[in-house]
Amino acid sequence: MFLEIPHVIGSVRPRITQSRELEMKASFQELLIYIIYLTDLCIITFGMVSTDMYYLNKVMLKLFLKTPLPGVENIDFTTMGSISDFWQFLEGPLLDGLFWKPWPNDNSTSLHRNSSYIYYENLLLGVPQIRQLRIRNNTCSIYPPFRAFTKLCYGKYSYKYEDRESFGLKNDSAWHYSRPTSLSLWHWGSIGLYSSGGFRFTLPKTKEKSLEKLIFLEDNNWITKGTRVVFIDFSMYNANVNLFCIVRLTVEFPAIGGIIPSWRFRSVKLLRYVTYFDYFLASCEVIFCLFVLTFFIQEMSQMKRLKINYFKDGWNWLDMLLLLLNVVAIVFNAYRTVEVSRLMENLLSNSDVYPDFYFLGYWQSRYNNMISVNIFFAWIKIFKFISFNKTMTQLSSTLARCAKDIIGFAIMFFIIFFAYAQLGYLVFGSQVNEFSTFQNCMYE
Amino acid sequence: MFLEIPHVIGSVRPRITQSRELEMKASFQELLIYIIYLTDLCIITFGMVSTDMYYLNKVMLKLFLKTPLPGVENIDFTTMGSISDFWQFLEGPLLDGLFWKPWPNDNSTSLHRNSSYIYYENLLLGVPQIRQLRIRNNTCSIYPPFRAFTKLCYGKYSYKYEDRESFGLKNDSAWHYSRPTSLSLWHWGSIGLYSSGGFRFTLPKTKEKSLEKLIFLEDNNWITKGTRVVFIDFSMYNANVNLFCIVRLTVEFPAIGGIIPSWRFRSVKLLRYVTYFDYFLASCEVIFCLFVLTFFIQEMSQMKRLKINYFKDGWNWLDMLLLLLNVVAIVFNAYRTVEVSRLMENLLSNSDVYPDFYFLGYWQSRYNNMISVNIFFAWIKIFKFISFNKTMTQLSSTLARCAKDIIGFAIMFFIIFFAYAQLGYLVFGSQVNEFSTFQNCMYE
Amino acid sequence: MFLEIPHVIGSVRPRITQSRELEMKASFQELLIYIIYLTDLCIITFGMVSTDMYYLNKVMLKLFLKTPLPGVENIDFTTMGSISDFWQFLEGPLLDGLFWKPWPNDNSTSLHRNSSYIYYENLLLGVPQIRQLRIRNNTCSIYPPFRAFTKLCYGKYSYKYEDRESFGLKNDSAWHYSRPTSLSLWHWGSIGLYSSGGFRFTLPKTKEKSLEKLIFLEDNNWITKGTRVVFIDFSMYNANVNLFCIVRLTVEFPAIGGIIPSWRFRSVKLLRYVTYFDYFLASCEVIFCLFVLTFFIQEMSQMKRLKINYFKDGWNWLDMLLLLLNVVAIVFNAYRTVEVSRLMENLLSNSDVYPDFYFLGYWQSRYNNMISVNIFFAWIKIFKFISFNKTMTQLSSTLARCAKDIIGFAIMFFIIFFAYAQLGYLVFGSQVNEFSTFQNCMYE
Amino acid sequence: MFLEIPHVIGSVRPRITQSRELEMKASFQELLIYIIYLTDLCIITFGMVSTDMYYLNKVMLKLFLKTPLPGVENIDFTTMGSISDFWQFLEGPLLDGLFWKPWPNDNSTSLHRNSSYIYYENLLLGVPQIRQLRIRNNTCSIYPPFRAFTKLCYGKYSYKYEDRESFGLKNDSAWHYSRPTSLSLWHWGSIGLYSSGGFRFTLPKTKEKSLEKLIFLEDNNWITKGTRVVFIDFSMYNANVNLFCIVRLTVEFPAIGGIIPSWRFRSVKLLRYVTYFDYFLASCEVIFCLFVLTFFIQEMSQMKRLKINYFKDGWNWLDMLLLLLNVVAIVFNAYRTVEVSRLMENLLSNSDVYPDFYFLGYWQSRYNNMISVNIFFAWIKIFKFISFNKTMTQLSSTLARCAKDIIGFAIMFFIIFFAYAQLGYLVFGSQVNEFSTFQNCMYE
Repeated sequence: MFLEIPHVIGSVRPRITQSRELEMKASFQELLIYIIYLTDLCIITFGMVSTDMYYLNKVMLKLFLKTPLPGVENIDFTTMGSISDFWQFLEGPLLDGLFWKPWPNDNSTSLHRNSSYIYYENLLLGVPQIRQLRIRNNTCSIYPPFRAFTKLCYGKYSYKYEDRESFGLKNDSAWHYSRPTSLSLWHWGSIGLYSSGGFRFTLPKTKEKSLEKLIFLEDNNWITKGTRVVFIDFSMYNANVNLFCIVRLTVEFPAIGGIIPSWRFRSVKLLRYVTYFDYFLASCEVIFCLFVLTFFIQEMSQMKRLKINYFKDGWNWLDMLLLLLNVVAIVFNAYRTVEVSRLMENLLSNSDVYPDFYFLGYWQSRYNNMISVNIFFAWIKIFKFISFNKTMTQLSSTLARCAKDIIGFAIMFFIIFFAYAQLGYLVFGSQVNEFSTFQNCMYE
Repeated sequence: MFLEIPHVIGSVRPRITQSRELEMKASFQELLIYIIYLTDLCIITFGMVSTDMYYLNKVMLKLFLKTPLPGVENIDFTTMGSISDFWQFLEGPLLDGLFWKPWPNDNSTSLHRNSSYIYYENLLLGVPQIRQLRIRNNTCSIYPPFRAFTKLCYGKYSYKYEDRESFGLKNDSAWHYSRPTSLSLWHWGSIGLYSSGGFRFTLPKTKEKSLEKLIFLEDNNWITKGTRVVFIDFSMYNANVNLFCIVRLTVEFPAIGGIIPSWRFRSVKLLRYVTYFDYFLASCEVIFCLFVLTFFIQEMSQMKRLKINYFKDGWNWLDMLLLLLNVVAIVFNAYRTVEVSRLMENLLSNSDVYPDFYFLGYWQSRYNNMISVNIFFAWIKIFKFISFNKTMTQLSSTLARCAKDIIGFAIMFFIIFFAYAQLGYLVFGSQVNEFSTFQNCMYE
Repeated sequence: MFLEIPHVIGSVRPRITQSRELEMKASFQELLIYIIYLTDLCIITFGMVSTDMYYLNKVMLKLFLKTPLPGVENIDFTTMGSISDFWQFLEGPLLDGLFWKPWPNDNSTSLHRNSSYIYYENLLLGVPQIRQLRIRNNTCSIYPPFRAFTKLCYGKYSYKYEDRESFGLKNDSAWHYSRPTSLSLWHWGSIGLYSSGGFRFTLPKTKEKSLEKLIFLEDNNWITKGTRVVFIDFSMYNANVNLFCIVRLTVEFPAIGGIIPSWRFRSVKLLRYVTYFDYFLASCEVIFCLFVLTFFIQEMSQMKRLKINYFKDGWNWLDMLLLLLNVVAIVFNAYRTVEVSRLMENLLSNSDVYPDFYFLGYWQSRYNNMISVNIFFAWIKIFKFISFNKTMTQLSSTLARCAKDIIGFAIMFFIIFFAYAQLGYLVFGSQVNEFSTFQNCMYE
Repeated sequence: MFLEIPHVIGSVRPRITQSRELEMKASFQELLIYIIYLTDLCIITFGMVSTDMYYLNKVMLKLFLKTPLPGVENIDFTTMGSISDFWQFLEGPLLDGLFWKPWPNDNSTSLHRNSSYIYYENLLLGVPQIRQLRIRNNTCSIYPPFRAFTKLCYGKYSYKYEDRESFGLKNDSAWHYSRPTSLSLWHWGSIGLYSSGGFRFTLPKTKEKSLEKLIFLEDNNWITKGTRVVFIDFSMYNANVNLFCIVRLTVEFPAIGGIIPSWRFRSVKLLRYVTYFDYFLASCEVIFCLFVLTFFIQEMSQMKRLKINYFKDGWNWLDMLLLLLNVVAIVFNAYRTVEVSRLMENLLSNSDVYPDFYFLGYWQSRYNNMISVNIFFAWIKIFKFISFNKTMTQLSSTLARCAKDIIGFAIMFFIIFFAYAQLGYLVFGSQVNEFSTFQNCMYE
């Protein structure tokens, strides 16, 4: 151990032993190149987002979540509490929000007579899809004496207890189980993780027919005691700002009765190369790829040279992490472009089906987060080049020396903190929202 | 004093004088056993609670407290202000919430035609009970000149001023005082501690008859000027998730006029051995009992060996506290199982009476809190095994040395803090909620 | 200066030079007596307040401020904005709140047929009084070119611009100015300090006649362009808990248009010797007087002995302050008792007049605050007896040594803070509530 | 560098080398003069603002923003969401707020029969103006496959894409573009910077005709798909308190659909010399000008004496800044007086046009802010005279010594902070209001 350290210093940071002037110059050159790379990365990342996304989400959120149910001032999607409220939401605010009459005197658009433009600007893509998951009877144990009272027992949702039998009228896809498509994701709701199959139906292209269909389903009890969750999925495209808004409204019917609504609005830029600025971004992306290639070669050569010692410097780990994130970003970007084209083609050939943008929207927002973390680390890496700051090195060496004590304290702190969070969860968990899940307790 | 210290060290911690290696090994073995015990305890405790409790409380709270009175958008149980509001609540939201029609087309359940399933899932157990406490006339002193104005004077509630005379129509149990059952608890309300007797009646099994009864009581002035509090008690059982929800809505009629509503929703798991997972928990409980027995014997032998010195080590006090809590937990668990069976039997044989789960729910939630504190201390005890941490011992010895100064400061701080809280209570107490009781002032 | 210090020490604290044991004993004896005094003071102070005060205020606040105007769900006293809203409030929520029908079937109380019991428990004392203050025309300068547009100019309220001319129908006291009674206080409103005279009228004893009167006044424009404030005053007495609730609702009509409502609810215990507990309090008060007398003699003798040096010890200043507060408290207590008796007598002989409890309520609440500050200082004084704490003296001597620097910093801090508050007031004052007055800015 | 420092000390602060007594005296004299200057400045600044401004803004804000749309309890200007809501606002709350009937029985004011007094006290100046900005079709790129669906594409607002073609009925100024007046300012809205031209019209002098005009415009689709923003401008004058209230309500129609309302209420004192107090202020202003002149000469002479060294003392920079601010303030004050007179003359000669006070109000509030900053620095400058405080100099010299380290840390902190803000913007920007713009992220 003691013998190794000089070796490490000698090999990993040979420039410390070089003359200071040369080192400074090399460092400065490296820094300059790095700043170009960082600028390029910033342009790409900021080109990806826009304030419009926020306003699009906000406007849609207000339209679908804050419109009160007909005849009741105080109840909207976020505060509804019973199954009849839910049907009223479907037949009222949802249909009102989805199907808009064309702009008055707007004769120029005879082509898309059947298309609905939400708020006159956002084209509803294809048709909305409503999907439910059900659970089988007798999926929970009843205390024997109570069996006289109730023969029905529908437990909490769980994949293995899913009911895939056709039910009700059985004359329509809404009553038959359909398997998930290969790409769909399972959904984390408030109280469960839901599979991607279920009993699906799509709404017709007009408001009148949709209302008819919904009333028909309500009258025939499409929502049963075994229903555990209903998803309402639709997407829209705003040509003015080239943004997709992918919406999922989720209504859970827990085993304890009542309903728990939740929602997800995702505004994403799926079509990337439309305006001239987009082409500028594209060229930035090409430069970015070149940078990544160069860095990759650099790191490889350095790894080859230093061998095992390469992994002993924290900065190298950061370099590798950044490289990995960059490569994943490039691959995802390519995949997204192909997949959007395919979906678009399908949609344009037949506009009466539900286009599953949810999957793409989910990964696009994951990708955005990843690239954001990427740029954060890229900013931190800048310290590699300016770390000859005296105060900084003093600080870090002091930290290194008392690392053991700090770790000891950290463990003690963690145990006490964990015990305290557990206490909070156990004592207040059933009454207070902030303590209702163990994760929340940890955050408090 | 000086002579005693080496003695203490020599006897309480003899392992310090042993060889370090042996000690480490013994310590590690102890730690391992302790971790098994801790895991067992965690499984038992977390098996006792579930997120469903939170959602069950939330759903019930919304149903009974947030439904507005008929015809008034802004007034619900939490904001009602006059006696007529209270009768409207009883006849409106309460009855609507309690009595649900069966699920449409649900023919399979002919057996329990008269049972109400709240939100279609939660069986109302037996019937709800409404109980009031009244106070006698002339229970306060009137300033002599005012005696011309008012001959009636009903003071604040106090057990010794309780009015136990029959009143009103006297044709029914609602008008006759009934003694408390032996087990019932007194109730801490917002402005008083209420005894457990009172004028009680239960609601019939149907909504129509209940409404009739309530209107009859309203017309005959069941609530008088002497009424100081009304309790509405009912319980429900959710077979899907095997949870009881025990509800008490309290409406106080203070001597100053107006009404003060409060409420208590308790979701508890009273039936423990129903599913397979429950049997796994039961086996964990058996293991737990064995652990407790072992610990008990260990502590006894240690106490015998060390005699008076045993009580000089803080860790031993913690051990004893944990043992005591464990034993109480085991005893309560046994009692609960017996008591629930008895109540269930009674209820199943006659479903027209009010089943008093409130007492059991209260102790179950107290028990949950106790076991939570238990597990918190059990986590803390883990430091006993890893306390050879150097920094830790430095810290504690430093603290010990300046204990006297710290205590001096603490007393000074307490006096100033107490004086300050008192000032806040006296100056702002009659205007601001946060200062309305002296306890609140202390918390601020 | 240097020569004086030993002198001071020698004379003010001669016990430091005595033997330590004797000193401790004397100190302990003093402390014991002081604790008895403190306990007595606490009993008196806490006997003066009760949680009922808070609930009485809360219930009344809800009744008068939170009841919406007839036909409008969202507007109540606190949110009303125009003069017609104000008349609606007077004719709706105010009259509904003031005049209650007797409790159903309550025949026993034939004596007080005309009395209104708010919430069935709180006797409305006498009749409510409504009072306005007006301002003369041409009390502000109009920019010359605008004089063509408007001949009327009613400036901000100011005592010297008050309009005391009779106006309108002149057939009633409501249209004639009446001078303030000698005792009434000026009122600090949101935007001015209002004198205590004005155009007053009282409401009749029944709701119907009151409504008639108010409609008559509204139709004849009792509120004119010169009206700057309207006060609504009434008091009630709750015999159950022996509390007065003295209410003043203030509506300001600022020169900028619109209306600004404010309010003051004061629950006070004006009648002190009614129950047995009150007599116990009375005996405590006698003991308190004896204590005050003793302390007075003690301080006098000490002052005589130490002469000018007496004033060099901070504790002596505290002693004098406490003595002064105590004497004022005793005097006020005597005055209150006399004044309440007088007012009560007047009220009982003629219940159709407005009894001016506002003045008494104001001073009672001032008195409560004073006695609260008194007891706070009394608690602090306890340190005089336990100040031989070593750490404490170290702390205070250190503070004394660097007092000069601290004061220098304090001045600098104050200048910067003042400049900053001023900046906040000037920049945000016209937009944000927190900065709307300079005092608010200082608190921020 | 090393040689220069004694030189600087010797020349800039020669008084340090003088005898201490003389220096103190000179310093005290300077301080005294400075305090007179500061007092004068304070009087001027506080004479400029008043609490009435806050209440005037508040009352107007409530009237125009909080009045609900007719028939809908929950929707007002701040929460409206669709174009039809906007027309309802124009025809309902706006007209109700603008046009008030005269005070009942107010015959004295026959002259201004057509003038509307908002809240009976605030004269509506001239007539309100409504102005919209539109954008051309095909101002954004549509993804080729979507071109079949939509031929219309109106992008985000941008000056170069503005549509200045006449449209609709073309029979009125409302349908023709009018160029901006030379003085008008561009407007920063929530999502764009808007030019000052547009399609304008003014409302007639009566409510009935205004309603007619608005309904006519609504029926003929004055708001088109290309509309991006509508401004509603009006001003009022309160003669009682001599304040103008200049209101601009902005409604943006973003490219993503929906509407985003915002508002700006400015209460300013534009007419300065009306009351006697104003003349006192005027004399203070004259004194102020003399002070500024003196300071200017002083600084000039000092600058001449010290040459380049003058700029090496931070206090001198502060002096120069203050002088500059003072001169700008004086110039603006002169300009304002002239401009208001001109506007007033225009308005009084023809009251049927829209008087553009917005420009003046904007600069007046900018001026208020400037003078506030001015007085803040003037307060800080007082330390120049009392900086012989020992502690202070110690502090500043310590700070000066470790400036390099502090700057290093500051840079590091800024980079990390910037990276963190960027991360927040990228990850949460599209969902959470606090992160919706990068500036907001920086403030967090």
